Amino acid sequence: MYALYYWPTIQGRGEFIRLSLEEADAPYRDVARESGRGAGVPALLHFLQGRGIARPPFAPPFLMAGRLVIGQTANILQFLGTRHALAPRTESGRLWTHELQLTIADLVAEVHDTHHPIAVDLYYEDQMKEARRKAADFLKNRVPKYLGYFEKILAGTRGSKFLLGAKPSYVDLSLFQIVAGLSYAFPNAMARAAPKYRRLFALHARVQERPRIAAYLASPRRIAFNEDGIFRRYPELDAARKTRKT
Amino acid sequence: MYALYYWPTIQGRGEFIRLSLEEADAPYRDVARESGRGAGVPALLHFLQGRGIARPPFAPPFLMAGRLVIGQTANILQFLGTRHALAPRTESGRLWTHELQLTIADLVAEVHDTHHPIAVDLYYEDQMKEARRKAADFLKNRVPKYLGYFEKILAGTRGSKFLLGAKPSYVDLSLFQIVAGLSYAFPNAMARAAPKYRRLFALHARVQERPRIAAYLASPRRIAFNEDGIFRRYPELDAARKTRKT
Repeated sequence: MYALYYWPTIQGRGEFIRLSLEEADAPYRDVARESGRGAGVPALLHFLQGRGIARPPFAPPFLMAGRLVIGQTANILQFLGTRHALAPRTESGRLWTHELQLTIADLVAEVHDTHHPIAVDLYYEDQMKEARRKAADFLKNRVPKYLGYFEKILAGTRGSKFLLGAKPSYVDLSLFQIVAGLSYAFPNAMARAAPKYRRLFALHARVQERPRIAAYLASPRRIAFNEDGIFRRYPELDAARKTRKT
Repeated sequence: MYALYYWPTIQGRGEFIRLSLEEADAPYRDVARESGRGAGVPALLHFLQGRGIARPPFAPPFLMAGRLVIGQTANILQFLGTRHALAPRTESGRLWTHELQLTIADLVAEVHDTHHPIAVDLYYEDQMKEARRKAADFLKNRVPKYLGYFEKILAGTRGSKFLLGAKPSYVDLSLFQIVAGLSYAFPNAMARAAPKYRRLFALHARVQERPRIAAYLASPRRIAFNEDGIFRRYPELDAARKTRKT
């Protein structure tokens, strides 16, 4: 039984871990969402404060696996990938999978910064002006760079259903979350961009139809996107709606 | 013989790889700094463009090791750590080392954003106003959070010379670079902060005195810090100079 520690009211970076645990059908507690002794946000903060913890994580998410406490999203996924066949077994395959995940981590940080370009500790409202500039650049330059890259990689895997073969890896699950999240946050921009990223959107659909993922998404375990998470729908940061010529 | 691919005129993220290769005494070419056929920046761009490359990296640095092409700084370090005893052998030790490196990667991205808070493709001069706000928050809130974290971890390793024992790991080398870089970029702020991070500065000194690292730093292979890299000295982003009371 794993114990996942992450903020209880957002998908955030924790969601990448949840998706892998769900696809692997691995039993886990989502500790900060439980109540009672040793649970809830206090249990999470206990680890972060680090008193008596030999290897305290810097930030959530972190995962307890037996006596191991593992921090950093991509690090946790690499660990789960090996244990639950969500990554190839060869060294070259594992390195490549992790490399792609680290590029996704860079993208996730940039998504976060579209609404928090100045300071993570300030409210969005206190950096809205800068956020508009940042988000415009993100949609114009960064989304094409990242999504174009993954589209190119997918084009090179002709014949295989997922990025690394017939079965999904943790990177496929993470790309599902990227497409879902960007589509939530920037519905106009993404609707316009979708034709350029057919393979990526098709991958999103294939992951969504996996029986365990579909069951998870329909369950109360999946927290809805909201404006406290990484992917936030602020209409002023999205592209303008397409107007139909009459 | 390894082949490192990174921009030829800056330390940047490539420097974390160079430090590990140097400490390991591993032979390597620094391809984009060489001239001639198959070398220089064109050789680097060839991989990024990805034509005929099965697994093209998203960005430099990347490392060729035999037929492997490995991208993403932390991923390369993990690979080198295993091969050259720059990380523990146990699973728990390797996970912890990588976790710390990924936290360093997050910090490096935030350092970069102090001078490029809006867009990586715009000049610093075009986002100076935002950079001032970003850097002020970085020095006030983020430096204490990150350096305080590493100082706390170092405090927990009483008796050992380096983070993970008697020998330096790739994380020790990376923390050396963090202290060196922050001290270059923000001399006033770091001079003021130094007493709070005695262990971290002591670690920096110990790494600097390693014979191979000392030889490397004195060689032309070490590119000087400059205002094209990640750590840039822009006086307007640093704290004000301490004035002596007379």
